[in-house]
Amino acid sequence: MIKVGIVGGTGYTGVELLRILAQHPKVKLKVITSRQEAGMAVDELFPSLRKKITLKFSDPSKADLNKCDLVFFATPNGVAMQQARSLFDAGVKIIDLSADFRIKDVAEWEKWYGMSHACPELVAEAIYGLPEVNRASIKNAKLIANPGCYPTAVQLGFLPLIEAKIVDMNQLIADTKSGVSGAGRKAEVHTLFPEAADNFKSYAVPGHRHLPEIKQGLSNIARKQIGLTFVPHLTPMIRGIHATLYATLTKQIDLQTLYADRYANEPFVDVLPAGSHPETRSVRGSNFCRIAVHRPQGGNIAVILSVTDNLVKGAAGQAVQNMNIMFGLPETLGIEHVPLLP
Amino acid sequence: MIKVGIVGGTGYTGVELLRILAQHPKVKLKVITSRQEAGMAVDELFPSLRKKITLKFSDPSKADLNKCDLVFFATPNGVAMQQARSLFDAGVKIIDLSADFRIKDVAEWEKWYGMSHACPELVAEAIYGLPEVNRASIKNAKLIANPGCYPTAVQLGFLPLIEAKIVDMNQLIADTKSGVSGAGRKAEVHTLFPEAADNFKSYAVPGHRHLPEIKQGLSNIARKQIGLTFVPHLTPMIRGIHATLYATLTKQIDLQTLYADRYANEPFVDVLPAGSHPETRSVRGSNFCRIAVHRPQGGNIAVILSVTDNLVKGAAGQAVQNMNIMFGLPETLGIEHVPLLP
Amino acid sequence: MIKVGIVGGTGYTGVELLRILAQHPKVKLKVITSRQEAGMAVDELFPSLRKKITLKFSDPSKADLNKCDLVFFATPNGVAMQQARSLFDAGVKIIDLSADFRIKDVAEWEKWYGMSHACPELVAEAIYGLPEVNRASIKNAKLIANPGCYPTAVQLGFLPLIEAKIVDMNQLIADTKSGVSGAGRKAEVHTLFPEAADNFKSYAVPGHRHLPEIKQGLSNIARKQIGLTFVPHLTPMIRGIHATLYATLTKQIDLQTLYADRYANEPFVDVLPAGSHPETRSVRGSNFCRIAVHRPQGGNIAVILSVTDNLVKGAAGQAVQNMNIMFGLPETLGIEHVPLLP
Amino acid sequence: MIKVGIVGGTGYTGVELLRILAQHPKVKLKVITSRQEAGMAVDELFPSLRKKITLKFSDPSKADLNKCDLVFFATPNGVAMQQARSLFDAGVKIIDLSADFRIKDVAEWEKWYGMSHACPELVAEAIYGLPEVNRASIKNAKLIANPGCYPTAVQLGFLPLIEAKIVDMNQLIADTKSGVSGAGRKAEVHTLFPEAADNFKSYAVPGHRHLPEIKQGLSNIARKQIGLTFVPHLTPMIRGIHATLYATLTKQIDLQTLYADRYANEPFVDVLPAGSHPETRSVRGSNFCRIAVHRPQGGNIAVILSVTDNLVKGAAGQAVQNMNIMFGLPETLGIEHVPLLP
Repeated sequence: MIKVGIVGGTGYTGVELLRILAQHPKVKLKVITSRQEAGMAVDELFPSLRKKITLKFSDPSKADLNKCDLVFFATPNGVAMQQARSLFDAGVKIIDLSADFRIKDVAEWEKWYGMSHACPELVAEAIYGLPEVNRASIKNAKLIANPGCYPTAVQLGFLPLIEAKIVDMNQLIADTKSGVSGAGRKAEVHTLFPEAADNFKSYAVPGHRHLPEIKQGLSNIARKQIGLTFVPHLTPMIRGIHATLYATLTKQIDLQTLYADRYANEPFVDVLPAGSHPETRSVRGSNFCRIAVHRPQGGNIAVILSVTDNLVKGAAGQAVQNMNIMFGLPETLGIEHVPLLP
Repeated sequence: MIKVGIVGGTGYTGVELLRILAQHPKVKLKVITSRQEAGMAVDELFPSLRKKITLKFSDPSKADLNKCDLVFFATPNGVAMQQARSLFDAGVKIIDLSADFRIKDVAEWEKWYGMSHACPELVAEAIYGLPEVNRASIKNAKLIANPGCYPTAVQLGFLPLIEAKIVDMNQLIADTKSGVSGAGRKAEVHTLFPEAADNFKSYAVPGHRHLPEIKQGLSNIARKQIGLTFVPHLTPMIRGIHATLYATLTKQIDLQTLYADRYANEPFVDVLPAGSHPETRSVRGSNFCRIAVHRPQGGNIAVILSVTDNLVKGAAGQAVQNMNIMFGLPETLGIEHVPLLP
Repeated sequence: MIKVGIVGGTGYTGVELLRILAQHPKVKLKVITSRQEAGMAVDELFPSLRKKITLKFSDPSKADLNKCDLVFFATPNGVAMQQARSLFDAGVKIIDLSADFRIKDVAEWEKWYGMSHACPELVAEAIYGLPEVNRASIKNAKLIANPGCYPTAVQLGFLPLIEAKIVDMNQLIADTKSGVSGAGRKAEVHTLFPEAADNFKSYAVPGHRHLPEIKQGLSNIARKQIGLTFVPHLTPMIRGIHATLYATLTKQIDLQTLYADRYANEPFVDVLPAGSHPETRSVRGSNFCRIAVHRPQGGNIAVILSVTDNLVKGAAGQAVQNMNIMFGLPETLGIEHVPLLP
Repeated sequence: MIKVGIVGGTGYTGVELLRILAQHPKVKLKVITSRQEAGMAVDELFPSLRKKITLKFSDPSKADLNKCDLVFFATPNGVAMQQARSLFDAGVKIIDLSADFRIKDVAEWEKWYGMSHACPELVAEAIYGLPEVNRASIKNAKLIANPGCYPTAVQLGFLPLIEAKIVDMNQLIADTKSGVSGAGRKAEVHTLFPEAADNFKSYAVPGHRHLPEIKQGLSNIARKQIGLTFVPHLTPMIRGIHATLYATLTKQIDLQTLYADRYANEPFVDVLPAGSHPETRSVRGSNFCRIAVHRPQGGNIAVILSVTDNLVKGAAGQAVQNMNIMFGLPETLGIEHVPLLP
């Protein structure tokens, strides 16, 4: 059994991680910390976990995380970078679900996240935890930078096109739509039900923090700097990301075959039959990314549709997938949930 | 492995049954029928089941259900009563998720359901599948009448009060609220998104089909005819039932202890701490019924709050719970899903 | 033209008041204050008001409200009682949409609202602004205590039964459901979209602040203390209140006629045909209260269904209705909006 | 007073037209037809219209539409083309909210709509009712082809770029999102609440009927054939369209000024301040189209955000705007509703 600790389990990625780990056959959840809720039973904050988890939130200053085999950070940005060093040195493996170790260019990270990086030397050590790209490196990683929700859906969608070098890499467009849980469990006016329900809007069109992460990932694959227009939108649903991706084809090849082949052995990437339109609910509560490919009217624009559950494949599920890989377990263990539909 | 057949798997209880059975370690799904979708792959109709279920819908006239150990009917009312006899005679166990065998008084059933009963002689054989009441009989049942969604939430809520004989049994009130999936996957105007979203209404106040079912169940426990006012409402959510129950206390006893004791050994009934307000999402996708008890301002009105997922404990999950009992499996096997929150 | 000021226009009752007043032919909106947003254009906070309202929020300390003919308070509880005295003395009419002047028993108010009343002597002067009960007094009122959202729907629903003295007044039950805008435009976790969407729950079952207000109103009509069990619920919709009311009949009279007659001349109370089920969306954005009456199975329980838009008839619309009465205008002027459906 | 008839008033554009016309000071609604609901009171089908409209639906075969000054067709595609000829010849003005007269190329229309055109000779007579483009022609029109919902939002969004000839007209992209009312009030499974709620998906990516309409409109302005990729999505909200438009700039000019100038005198097009993100709810129930313009990271991709209420500016409101123009009334008369927020 893997002895697991969680730092900061009161947000949506935290509760989702708890949901998954509570059912994982090889995990023993040892400790979960929260500054604010220390002493409270986890299932008092999240009644969905009653009869499933009996732990209480621990005071971070008293929690002995060093005895864990693995610690997940489900914290706001800026926390993991403060605490990773000592765990890393103690040989505890780390999976950071926040953005602290995702961007290799520290100056770039500091620009987008508006703070100094507290632990730049570990950034180089961190492995970007997108298994479909980095599986081999993840196997031996000590520190995983778990990808963001948008970056997962967008990168998996563009990946085959970039690898095959068949699109204009200067003019990629990602029009993305997220459920409101992507904004986190923070008391804010703009995500109140009466503000976000029965409403649709874009946000951060001038620049969103996931832009440099996606560009880094796709540029690594392209082996040159790619150009991306990234427009996120807030959708009145709880979970789910739908990425609608546009690229100008420079060669004519069979896109359906390209995608089917690329992902044939990926347990969590599902290429739909030609002509399909994936729905976010078809992955709700599951670790799947479902993708469909189109070339409307047979023109030179490829339209790729990619859906994930932002809290699973876009956060907690992918983190557990990384854990499975790091600890030599079957990659799908404990994350084989069938999506909840309707 | 239990060889299982499903008749009519294209509705919401059908797809939920498939979600649960696809993950059940002791079930081998052999056949699923649908007159309308015969020949179509199950995962084409329900993409959430891709990579999970590879069966196709079979033509009912060609499906060999007699080779199954157990057949679930997830059909509209009026179908199971046509087909149950031959399966019953062939020694195939039956769990009927429709209403065909729930009401012992056949004339009463015919009045509420507006048709002649095709198989009245099997009504007497049928065991009402509410394990918290009938566990012993379910164990040896050949034919289970699986309870309706409202009746499950309402009966589990009232049960301890009735058993303890501490309320006026002539003046029970059940004000119930259901998610829209309770209306089924039928093309109808009144459950279209633009009709049902951002809207709340009652329906069937003069009389709803679940009224005789609830009255029968509670009267059996009370050993006399109870009086119930039952008002259902349609709520703009997908899943979930919230029953708000009112009863006039005739004796003063500690309700919290009464409920905690009654359900102490029930794996799926969760009595919340005093002062709680259960949320439907705290049971979403799970087989739990969560209950809280109140006596506002210390008066003589008991207010019982009972929530379930109408498709799980109110339908498919309870059906599998019954299956587990019938086949000598651990009662919770394959239905231990942690609720999906948020 | 009536010179109107608004104190505190940044909440949901505030923006609704602005929507209505912007279209009212006899109102000149002079000033709107907000401590927090002083200096900001109203239509920057609420883009729905672009091209409709050009005012900026004023600093409360600098706003000259004394030049107004009428001031609306759309503030949290506890603000109006601080400022009403000086306006009252200056001859400015006041309509308070908060709870400060609703409860005649100041000690009772202080118990439920958890603060000392700053202006108890004006409580006696305040007229409770439910036109269907107090129209004559409203005409000459200087200070209106505008009713709460639940109290409006519940009182209008019970009113004819109480006036006719045909129910057991000790055992009234009000099972009420509110849209989330009823919780206000405050940054709080429990009303975030991912918490409140696809979810249903009760709250404040042990006691809600609207309970004493409703009991006061109904007891005044009954001329004796009534007994009420009041259970509010939070519903995943933006606007709307649905009150399901239960009363035990002590006399057999034709309820449909009773209600139709009682409200025959009320412009905003609509008694639906026998057998109806009012929907909250049928009043969305309008000042209507629609009511249906039932006696399920011809028993002795009357079930009254009453729906309003909590922000209109339950707040801003009723406030403008009171304004119209106070200023001798046609009662329906400027609040004749047709409900928005779908 | 304009004597108005409506053919087919039982869908969402019909009820919205009724909502608007019921409050229009210069309209006398004479007749409304429905084959299916003939004889039923309009307010029985739509209780939101109680106390507002007392008409009954008339049998189409008995309705005397020739006495009207104006007839609106709020019918499914294929109906208006059957009945327009005789009304046209009788001198009755016609506004068709369906697609029958929108496409000048009849063969193209027949391809996309899958039927033969019953009245091709009137297609040439029809004026495309987008006032911001065709105001002068609308003034004297006898037959208006009222634009579709997507085409209105997309054309108003692209218009200034096309007119200014500053973008690559072969590579336009329109990623559009619609509320579910856009699918109409038809009993279908895929728009049921449990299917469409908490879910997001694209549809008709290979080709949607509004594509030729948008291409025709933009090509007319460009005076050459434009190239457009058009991807519609279904969003879990009732009303609203959000168009996210992408174009490659070929010249560097100040987009904000371009848009502000182009729409300075348009009463219903609102160009938001630089940096804005329009919300669909900011136009809910109103005839506004709100637009924001962006150039992310100062690159060569223009991102235009355009929102409308699909039932108002995208259907019934625009139809009444056209009526006002045709009958010499102030263009905004009766369609000045303030959006309903929240």
